[in-house]
Amino acid sequence: MCPHALIPYKPKNPKTRLAAILSQEEREQFAFSMLEDVISAVKDAVCIPVIVSTELFDSEMVQVTITDADLNASLNEILPSAEQNILIIMADLPLADEASIRRVISTSSDMAIVPGRGGGTNVIFVKDPKRFHVDYYGTSFQKHLAIAQEAGLSVEVIDSFRLHTDIDEEEDLVELLIHGNGKSRAFLAERGFRLESETGRVRAVRQR
Amino acid sequence: MCPHALIPYKPKNPKTRLAAILSQEEREQFAFSMLEDVISAVKDAVCIPVIVSTELFDSEMVQVTITDADLNASLNEILPSAEQNILIIMADLPLADEASIRRVISTSSDMAIVPGRGGGTNVIFVKDPKRFHVDYYGTSFQKHLAIAQEAGLSVEVIDSFRLHTDIDEEEDLVELLIHGNGKSRAFLAERGFRLESETGRVRAVRQR
Repeated sequence: MCPHALIPYKPKNPKTRLAAILSQEEREQFAFSMLEDVISAVKDAVCIPVIVSTELFDSEMVQVTITDADLNASLNEILPSAEQNILIIMADLPLADEASIRRVISTSSDMAIVPGRGGGTNVIFVKDPKRFHVDYYGTSFQKHLAIAQEAGLSVEVIDSFRLHTDIDEEEDLVELLIHGNGKSRAFLAERGFRLESETGRVRAVRQR
Repeated sequence: MCPHALIPYKPKNPKTRLAAILSQEEREQFAFSMLEDVISAVKDAVCIPVIVSTELFDSEMVQVTITDADLNASLNEILPSAEQNILIIMADLPLADEASIRRVISTSSDMAIVPGRGGGTNVIFVKDPKRFHVDYYGTSFQKHLAIAQEAGLSVEVIDSFRLHTDIDEEEDLVELLIHGNGKSRAFLAERGFRLESETGRVRAVRQR
């Protein structure tokens, strides 16, 4: 079983909620390094990565170019034609590792879902993609559970903080600095990001 | 195997980082409801809850009263006299459930640790407590890994977002509203907290 892993990816001006601490060029480099970490984890779990993006970019990876910037419409065009099980994993999950992805794809249910922070959906695995469709944005986790229920698909919710932790905001960088071990963590370290302890939680600060 | 589960708990003026949205009385009720959720999960996983607190409070639970407000000193007095394996689980983990705790206590390593948000330590399980000591606050996760290494103890890091999600700040309430199903979630709902979608992540707002 080698599921195709669809990885939606936005190469141009990504991660705008990090704009206060990273320039556009840096955000593009950072997003690409996170994508590389996700691809690496996906391959370790013996899945076949397929980048889903609005534009082709320089990479040897299999790529699906979509004309529509609407992630939902694009994925929902792909799913009905899928001949085998499909993994959909976001590109901003640099803590993803082989073990966590294997937990997802080895579900005994019809589907597995990993919720993201704040009600999003970070990972979906569906054995019969023809019976499912996606509805990202907002509290998509709850929407996806409802879609599965309507379709009569059993769902396992995978309890993983590595796949739960999507990197969108400054405070998320702390988790990457502590638990990351790939290219995106190295990128942050090279750019001067360090952990700083104060009262309460630890923060990520940039030293220039 | 029924490990004792030490649950450090602060009944008076807890969760001060929620003071902007909850009164002191409400924070005390909320903290207690989270404790009840943790106790329930601990019991489901067939562990014996032992509340570790600076003061006795009205409960049928087994309690250890500590004179010292220093959590580290208190726990490090208890550990050397422990005759069997010990679980230490924080009281602000209302998403804890039987499955996640069972993953912790069934480790094949000498210890299991669950990191909290921002570098903290939410759960420790140690088979031979005499060989370990705790050092909470700051990036305690990394400190606990180092202590284990120095003691020659193998450690499994448990990848669980349910045990990773400690409830300290306003943004954490979103996770409880979405994924909780116990008394603390009910408390928030009764007090008017609802999910609100805006651009980006979903927020928890209070409607009065």
